[in-house]
This record gives sequence, structure tokens and C-alpha cells, in this order.
Amino acid sequence: MDYKELAAAARGNMGPWCKACPVCDGRACGSHMPGPGSKGTGTVAARNFAAWQDVRVQMDTIHEAYDADTSVKLFGRRLSVPVMIGPLGDVRLHYGDKWEMEDYNSCILHAAADAGSLAWTGDGKIASIHESAVHDIRDLGGCGVTTIKPWDLETVMRKLELALTARPVAIAMDIDAAGLPFLKGLQPPAGPKSVAELQQVADACHAHDTPFVLKGIMGGRAAHKAAETGADAIVVSNHGGRVQDGVPATAEVLPAIEREVGGDLKVLVDGGIRSGLDVFRALALGADACLVCRPFAVVTYGAGAEGVKDYFAQLTRELRDTMEMCGARTVADIGPEMLA
Amino acid sequence: MDYKELAAAARGNMGPWCKACPVCDGRACGSHMPGPGSKGTGTVAARNFAAWQDVRVQMDTIHEAYDADTSVKLFGRRLSVPVMIGPLGDVRLHYGDKWEMEDYNSCILHAAADAGSLAWTGDGKIASIHESAVHDIRDLGGCGVTTIKPWDLETVMRKLELALTARPVAIAMDIDAAGLPFLKGLQPPAGPKSVAELQQVADACHAHDTPFVLKGIMGGRAAHKAAETGADAIVVSNHGGRVQDGVPATAEVLPAIEREVGGDLKVLVDGGIRSGLDVFRALALGADACLVCRPFAVVTYGAGAEGVKDYFAQLTRELRDTMEMCGARTVADIGPEMLA
Amino acid sequence: MDYKELAAAARGNMGPWCKACPVCDGRACGSHMPGPGSKGTGTVAARNFAAWQDVRVQMDTIHEAYDADTSVKLFGRRLSVPVMIGPLGDVRLHYGDKWEMEDYNSCILHAAADAGSLAWTGDGKIASIHESAVHDIRDLGGCGVTTIKPWDLETVMRKLELALTARPVAIAMDIDAAGLPFLKGLQPPAGPKSVAELQQVADACHAHDTPFVLKGIMGGRAAHKAAETGADAIVVSNHGGRVQDGVPATAEVLPAIEREVGGDLKVLVDGGIRSGLDVFRALALGADACLVCRPFAVVTYGAGAEGVKDYFAQLTRELRDTMEMCGARTVADIGPEMLA
Amino acid sequence: MDYKELAAAARGNMGPWCKACPVCDGRACGSHMPGPGSKGTGTVAARNFAAWQDVRVQMDTIHEAYDADTSVKLFGRRLSVPVMIGPLGDVRLHYGDKWEMEDYNSCILHAAADAGSLAWTGDGKIASIHESAVHDIRDLGGCGVTTIKPWDLETVMRKLELALTARPVAIAMDIDAAGLPFLKGLQPPAGPKSVAELQQVADACHAHDTPFVLKGIMGGRAAHKAAETGADAIVVSNHGGRVQDGVPATAEVLPAIEREVGGDLKVLVDGGIRSGLDVFRALALGADACLVCRPFAVVTYGAGAEGVKDYFAQLTRELRDTMEMCGARTVADIGPEMLA
Repeated sequence: MDYKELAAAARGNMGPWCKACPVCDGRACGSHMPGPGSKGTGTVAARNFAAWQDVRVQMDTIHEAYDADTSVKLFGRRLSVPVMIGPLGDVRLHYGDKWEMEDYNSCILHAAADAGSLAWTGDGKIASIHESAVHDIRDLGGCGVTTIKPWDLETVMRKLELALTARPVAIAMDIDAAGLPFLKGLQPPAGPKSVAELQQVADACHAHDTPFVLKGIMGGRAAHKAAETGADAIVVSNHGGRVQDGVPATAEVLPAIEREVGGDLKVLVDGGIRSGLDVFRALALGADACLVCRPFAVVTYGAGAEGVKDYFAQLTRELRDTMEMCGARTVADIGPEMLA
Repeated sequence: MDYKELAAAARGNMGPWCKACPVCDGRACGSHMPGPGSKGTGTVAARNFAAWQDVRVQMDTIHEAYDADTSVKLFGRRLSVPVMIGPLGDVRLHYGDKWEMEDYNSCILHAAADAGSLAWTGDGKIASIHESAVHDIRDLGGCGVTTIKPWDLETVMRKLELALTARPVAIAMDIDAAGLPFLKGLQPPAGPKSVAELQQVADACHAHDTPFVLKGIMGGRAAHKAAETGADAIVVSNHGGRVQDGVPATAEVLPAIEREVGGDLKVLVDGGIRSGLDVFRALALGADACLVCRPFAVVTYGAGAEGVKDYFAQLTRELRDTMEMCGARTVADIGPEMLA
Repeated sequence: MDYKELAAAARGNMGPWCKACPVCDGRACGSHMPGPGSKGTGTVAARNFAAWQDVRVQMDTIHEAYDADTSVKLFGRRLSVPVMIGPLGDVRLHYGDKWEMEDYNSCILHAAADAGSLAWTGDGKIASIHESAVHDIRDLGGCGVTTIKPWDLETVMRKLELALTARPVAIAMDIDAAGLPFLKGLQPPAGPKSVAELQQVADACHAHDTPFVLKGIMGGRAAHKAAETGADAIVVSNHGGRVQDGVPATAEVLPAIEREVGGDLKVLVDGGIRSGLDVFRALALGADACLVCRPFAVVTYGAGAEGVKDYFAQLTRELRDTMEMCGARTVADIGPEMLA
Repeated sequence: MDYKELAAAARGNMGPWCKACPVCDGRACGSHMPGPGSKGTGTVAARNFAAWQDVRVQMDTIHEAYDADTSVKLFGRRLSVPVMIGPLGDVRLHYGDKWEMEDYNSCILHAAADAGSLAWTGDGKIASIHESAVHDIRDLGGCGVTTIKPWDLETVMRKLELALTARPVAIAMDIDAAGLPFLKGLQPPAGPKSVAELQQVADACHAHDTPFVLKGIMGGRAAHKAAETGADAIVVSNHGGRVQDGVPATAEVLPAIEREVGGDLKVLVDGGIRSGLDVFRALALGADACLVCRPFAVVTYGAGAEGVKDYFAQLTRELRDTMEMCGARTVADIGPEMLA
């Protein structure tokens, strides 16, 4: 099934907030939370989506015929395609009762691994979510990325210790999570972290030869601080607009951030990436790989692991087509000179 | 209650013009006066609102956790938040019979003071409005700003003399009021004032150690003349579009005006500021503080002093969130480098 | 009555094409001819209107109070306001049976003169239109501008000879009229004219001390040729979009044309000017005066000479207000520095 | 009949996909294939159309009267107008049962020749389409352009050999055809071609004194490679958006491509050209001639050869009008200085 069919199949299976739109463009969900809505005026998710549409690719079909290679090496591992499944913190709350968080994580971890890629697991208020995700990643020989929220440092370290036992491909922290309305006033509190605190987290990861990723970087200042922490990668992300209203689209800030820290760090990006063409655009603007999140929730509600498989196949096919139509033989060939 | 709920509560209580929209964006009221409509094509208020939306903030959550301090010092007084309630001249005419001007002023003066901020009172054709506002401000130990319209100088001086007896935080004049259609042909007439005339007004204020503010400055030429008058502050304002059609949004002219006279004068701004995020934007573009006007009328029609309290709390919460998400510890930290 | 009321009154009196919209913005009439529609895609008239809306004025009310003087000297005559009624060639065909061309011209000539300004009369296929207009202008002591279409030179000279007997304020030629669909294939033919031919026309006018105006100039190349012909003035005009699709708005090309030939020629402008604010914008962009055409047809169908009088009064009032709100004492004060 | 009438006549005669809109702007067909929809988000065809609308022409009617000459010399032959009918690969599939591909090609070849211009024939899966088109072109003394898809080189050479027997005006290859969804997985496969391969094709054409054209060039890199192959002309084309989503409009890339290779190659363009005004725009941006495709399908479904004749007449009339209104006597006069 293609994405439109998977979204159609999801419609009966979802809660009232996500409409499983044929194109997941952030408009129907608006500003409603619970649900996948973005914060305040509810316009950031739509802006994320729209910004990719404004990036024009340069067609060039005068070259030898080849089968483009969509694979990419990341964190010492080869992915079949530069797309990973982004983390969700509470799929049941925002997308509906059909899936418990633990089952959802298990499903996407296995399906992403089967597709030759990775899923990132989210972190939430309930301890079992993290524990269960760690368990699944361990079963998969580490094939997954564990995200930990920016709780107080003691909690972070405790969760980190557990996570490292699974030897995951990487550990991530969504450093922007303090802006999530439903994290306000929780115990333990989630909040900003200083460079010094994050250095401790990065050091602990590195002690286990595990890369550390900071997710939620939207400007040069934060990117430089991320580099100072010793992180191995950042995700240019505004959390789908859910943590702060009035921020730019990720596509708008990606090129400048890549120019500033791309020599030192891997630069990943998320936000409104919906097709293999969008993946090509992100790579041409400087990203090493992408995270796609909400559409994977939709396809999982639509058809479970089969949905994940089909959507990975579609993204791969679309990326390969675009590469062949623009003259890229490998992912490394994709650069700004392939834009129009 | 949040603003949407307060607006919903206001709907049954208002006259036919203001629709108490969930987002007060100047579109539904159009060009209709009486009512909060703007002049001519009725597009300036909507442009004011839209211009803030185009100002993008730069997220940065890699920093120590702190409780951001939203307070600001203005006119020798500390406000809990850099937001004051803007002046209305005839709330009954434009918003409906539920509130008389005198009672409205009394309500917002007390509620703003309770919230740690200030209300500005308007001036109208009927003498009792000004007199009653002065009386209320005197009762509050001067906690309020009295606005006087640009009548003939004799009338201004008479009203000023009365106003100064209350020792208000400041005296303001909406120097652009001559453009209000419903002031045309009145006796005494309201109209432009020369630098020499305004110097007399400023001098009279200063003789009582009271700051003088010129409201309705929209360009460098007028801003320099305002500085010449000896005024202590200006409000970058187009009167919500009600005095002249075809003018820019206040957010569009604020940065240049601040560069020109910001070293000499306090620069305040109003027009379409609806959220704590918008307040952050205004401060990042160079404002020292903001005035918010129509939404306070809506919340007062919705829930009286409770509405004012709740909306102040919401603006403060949103500003604090944005400060923490962008790395500002105090209001003084908010500058153009926090924009994207 | 204001324009909206006059347009409402016109609605029952007009033919099927013009909708007498509350704001005459070129959208409802689209591309339909007969009717006031513009050519091809029918978008040029709307673009004319929209371009003025994008010109922002700079408010400045810190100045002495005065009654702004809206008068302007043009062609050796003082007009009460820098607005003249533009020419129509066939009011009955395009606006409806209520008015014959001859009666319409007579009405607007007298009403414009009464308002202290001028009407321009159009030229059409039927000889009596021109003859009758010349007759009326003669009765008014020359108070009017006679437009002659760019027929073959012999016809032009014959019509010119007659027109000059009325000693009109000026003679104009709409040099772009060849693009009018309903002039195609007529005898005598209307078409482009060379500089040499137009010099003959200008010379004939000057022999009678009558200024000659070329209407329909949209670029620097044509403006320079117009200067070569000896014309005294040009009208920056695209004929309301009726002669060529895909051209810019007049407001877009006015400033460059004024810079190129404004030192040698009077520069007038038309196209989408609907309010005194728009007149101010045109003058600030370099025009010496404006022509307004369609709205005068609407108000004439709505209320005859009374409509013309009321609309002139409205335009004058709006221009005076804008002048006072922007610090212009006389029309000569209005320049680009009054834009924002 | 004009285009609107021809489109109205087509409506009952077409399949379910094309709506035969009064203005063929790529919006109603969206992304649906079969049908004329464009790929992915289905926005490229609409962008092609819109980009021409943003090109403004500069009116200049101060010149001698003349009958503008719309003819152009291309491939050693004089065309009555710089417009040719673009190739379709499967008219029955995309536009409906009324026309078989062979009959359609025959109709447009003869009607274009009668109009003093040329039709380009498409190439498809079924051998008889190509064979039949070659047969018709031979009957017309070579008056047509044969398009061959980028099949494997052996197939191309076989088809080329047959095509050359008709001594067509030119041979073209739509080098971007690999992106057509319905060509995926066919035998023989269609795909990109290297410079070396295309040199063989060009050489084979030149051996028969026949020009070779590469269609589907959208950037400087591909244009330079096209020049290297020895091709005589390129068509700046994105295949109406059907081969790759996210590409620019052809009008957006035409000027840069013309600057880069226009000295060495003829530069043709297609995509959203719908009127003689659009043809003028394309020539002013640097094109030597245009291809118009879908509208000719619509008029053929509407009225067969009569429809083709009428639409050619309309395009010619509109181009001539625009030339006369902008001061171009011949097609060679049309250049960027005629834009505003």
C-alpha cells in the first residue's frame, strides 16, 4: 500500500485528533494537544512541511544508467536509506487507544530494523516505556536509538545507565522537551540543560562507545554549544512545532547550522519530511540523514509492521527515483549543486 | 480561563461589532466604526497582527535551568511583565452597553495594579471619563497612565492639571488621534500639535516629576520630533489602524525607530500583540514594553477583573516559557540575536 | 452619499457587466468585454488596484495644525484637487443603457468643473460623441480635456481641428488604444503612431497654445519617445488592463518613469486609484495628478451629477486627511519621504 | 472558435481525467495519472503556468504602424509562428477513447503543417505509434518532428533508422522520460543516457542532415552536456511536471540556460504556455520557439483539425497583437528589453 492508502486504512483506527490526512502537512491538526497539533497558533508544523516544498531540485538525466544507492553510513552502521523513525513519547494519548506506547515502540523497532534502518524510541512519564524500549533494542542487538528526556541529571543518568545495557546505536536527548505543555510541573522536572551537564551525559555515553545525539537544535548558538558538549550529532528539529511557537521551519535553518558545525558533527533533521523527494532536499541542504515521525505513527495505526515496511519502501523508491533524475549515484553525491 | 474561553464568555456580552474572535487578528471587525474596525480598507489592524507572526524566534535550550524573570523597570516602577493595558476612549460605543467607560477604566486600573502592571486610561468627549479615571488613579496611589487627547492647548493644560493631582506613573498623549473619524468637527477640536506646543505639555509634566509619553509615532521623522519635545517615551502605534489607512504595521517600523531614538527615549509599542510570544518578539525588535488593548476589552466583557487577571497570567506564562526556550534569563537579555 | 452608497444606488441602473462593487478593485469584472473587464486573463485591473495598497504612507502628526491645501496647478489652471475624471469611449456599451455617451460626457464635464476640477472626454466610433464633447467644453469655456484616439493622421487632424475650437485645457491621445479589441478592423483604423506623426499633432496643439498629452505610457522607452514628440504631459496608464494583458501595474512603473522624464514633462497616472489615500500615494511616487475613471461612471449611474460631486468631495476629504496625518501642508509637500 | 469554446466542446469527448478547463493551468488535473496530472504533489504543472504570469511585458505603442511578422526560421524551415505542437505518448490513456494515438498524430501533423508550423509526435510502448507517425511525416514531405524515448541504445537506433527514412524536420529525444511512472519496469527499459551514447544518436541524425533535439533540460549542467552531445537544440522542459516533482518552472530556469548555451544551441521551451502573450514572454526570456502540448489535445478532442487550426490562429493573433503593442516588428526584435 502507498501512503495514501495506509492513511485511509488508519482513519478508523485513530483517536479524534490526528485526521490521517492523505498528505500529512500539519494543517488539519492545528494547535490541538492532546493530538499531534503544534503549540500556540499551531502554524509551525505546517511551516515545516511548506519549507521543503520551496526547495527546488535540478533535474539532470544525461548520465549513464545506474541503480542509485540510497544507503548511508551513520553511527558506524549502514542504513538502507537515510531515514529513521522519529521518537514519540505517548502514542496512545496523541494518536489513539489502538496502540500502547510499549507495543508501538516494539513494532517500529523491529520493522525499521527489517527495513535496514532504525527507529528512535521516545521517553515518557511512565517508567515502563523506557524500560520496555531498552528491552526491545537489546533483543535487536542494539538496533535502535534511545531518546531520554532532559529530566534532572540524576534521573537522566539512571535512565542512561539502563539504556546503555542494550548497546543501542546511539542515545539521544530531546533538549527542547521542556517546552512540551504536558511536561509542565511534572516530578521529576524536565528542563534546559547546561553544557556542563550535557558533557556528563556525553561522557557517560562515550565510556560505552555509544554516540550521543542532541535533538532540538534550531540555531547557530545552540549548535555550537552542542558541539562543546561532545555530542556526536545533532537533530535540527523544532519538535514538530510542539515546544515553541514562532520558530522557523527546520529547512530554513538547516543550511546555516550545517555550515557552522557540519564539519564537527553529524547533522540530522526532522519536521515535515514526507517523501523521498523531501529526503533528497534535506540531504542537498546539508543533512546527513532524516527523521520522519508522524507518518510512521499513521502507517502503524493503518497496517502495523506492514505499514512501516511499505512506507520505508515508498520513501526509498522515491529517493532513488529523484537521485536518478538528478544525477546522483550515491547519497554522498547529493549536495547543494543539485538544487535549482 | 485562557483567552479562548474568556472570548467565548464575552460573546453574549458584547455589542454587534466586535466578534470576540478566538484569535483577535483584526479580520472580522474589518473597517466598521463604531466598533473596533480600522479605517478605510480596514486592513491595518490585520497587518499589525500578521507582522508579528513573521518574526521568528531562535530556540536555544542548552543552558542552566532557571525561572525566567519577566519583570521590567519602567518610569521608575517595576512591572511584573512588560505589558500594560492600552487606553480606550469609548468602550460602550465600540464594544457594547455592558460597560460604561468610567467603570471599565476603574476595573482595568485595579486589576492591572493587582497583576503588578498598569492600565492606561483613555480620554473622550465626556468630561466625566477623564475625571473619573484621574480619581481612580489617585485612589491607587498613582498606579495608572492617563492619556489626554490632543485637544486645543488650553483644554489639554486644564485636563493635565487635573491629571497631575493623581500623581500618575505617566501622562500620555495619543498625538495621532486627529485621524479618528468620530473626533471630526468636535468642539474643542483635536488635532496635530507642534513641537513647541508639546514642549509645554512635557514641561508641565516634568514640573511634577511625571514622565510624558507621545503615543502614535510611526516613523523616524516623528520620532525625532518627539525627542525634541522632551518626551520621556514614545509608543510606536498606528492606533490599531483607526486613524490612518495605508500605514505599515508597527512591527515593521519598530526596529528603525528604536535605532534612531532608542538611546534617548523609552520605546513602547502596540498593535496586534496578542501573546507572550508576541511580547518577546516586540522586545527582541527593540521595544522596552508593550501595550495590549482590545483583548483586555474582550476579557473584561467576558469576566471582568477575573478576566484581566487571567489574561495577564497567560501573557506572563507565555513570555516566561518563550524566554526559557530561547535562553533569556531576564527581559534585558531579549534582543535581536534571539531572533532567527 | 459616500462611494459605497453611490455604488449601491448604481446597482439597479447598470448593465450586466459592471457589478458596482463596494470597492472597485477589478476582480468581479474579470476579463469580460463588453463591460469594464480587462484583456486576456483579466488580471491587470486588479493588479493596478493592489499595487497602490502596497504603498505605505508615513504618519507624522507632530506639526502645527492647519487646513491642508489639496489644490494643484496643471496646464496653467488651478484644480481644487489633483484628480480628474478619466475618459470613457462607450459608456452605454460597457456600463448600460441608462446613459448615452453624449449625455454622460456633458454630465461629468459640468460636474467636474463645478467641483473645481476637469473631466476628460473619450473618443469613439460615432462622430457625434466627439462633436458633442467639444460643444460642451466650448460652453464651459474650455474646461475639459478632449481625448482623440490614434486614428489615421488625417482623421486625427480633422478631429483635432474641431477640438481646438473649444480651447480645451488640453488635448490628449490614448496612444495605446490600438489594443482595444472592439477597435480591431475599424475604418478608419486606429493604431500606433510614430514620433514624427505625434510631433505633427503636438505642433498643431501648440499652434493654438494648447497642451498635448500622451496617455498610455508604461516604460522608459515610450516615455522618452513621448518627450521627443513635444508632448507636455504623459499619463502612466495601461488603459485599465484593456489594451494588453501581462503588463505591470501603473504604480509599479510610475517611479522609474518619473525619474526619467519627470523633469521635462508633467506625469499623470491612472489605474485603480480609488481613494484620497491612493491619490496621496500616487503623488508621493512622483505623479503630478491622477485620473480616476470607472468609479466616476459608477457614481454617475448611481446619482448623476450629485454622485460626481459627492465622490469628488470624498476624494478631497480623504486626501486632506491623509495630508494632515502625514505632515503635508500643500500638494507640493507630498514626496517619497512621506512613504514608510 | 476560441480556446474557451473549443475546451467547452471537448468536455463531452474526453476521458475522466482532463477537465478541459477554460484556462489550462494544471490545477484541476492535480497529481492523477493516468490523465495529464503531474507527479508527486502534483504542483509542477501549475507552477509552470503561474511562472509565465509573473513575467511582465513593457508596452510601447509610439512607433510606426506595421503588421508584425510572427514567422521564425527553425531547423532551416520557416514557421508561421514560433509555436509547435508538443508530443504525447498515449493520448487515449490520458485524454480518452475518442482518439487513437495513431489518428491523433496524423491529425495534428497535417493540421500543424496546414497552419505553417510543425507537430512533434510522441513515442510509446506500442510499435505502431512510432511507425504510423513516421509514415505520416513521410507523406507530409518530412513536415514533423519525431520524438524517440530514451530506450536502450539498440532500440533507439532501430527506431531512429526508421524515422530518418521520413526525412523529418528534426528528431528529438525526451531524455527525462525515465521519470514517467508508467514507463517503470518496461522491456526494453527507458532510462538516462550518457553523453557518449547521445553522441551516437546525434551523429546518426547528422549523417542524414537531420537536426537532433534533446528535450527535458532543466539546468546549466545538463545543458552543457547536451551541447557536448552535438545536439542542435534543447527543449527546456520538465515534461509538464510528470517526470519529477519539486523542480522549478521552465520560465524560472530558461534565462540562465539560454545565457549558458544559447550561443551554441537553439533553445526551445514548453510548460504552461497557453497564449500568444506567453509565447512573447518565452521569446523575451530567450527562447527561439515554444512547444504547446496539452491545449492542442483539448482542441483536437473538441473539434479535430478545425480546433488545431483555430487555436493556431488564436496564438498567432495574440502574439501579433502583443508584438505590435510592445514595438516588435519581427520575432527577432523580441528580447529582455521588452519586459518591464
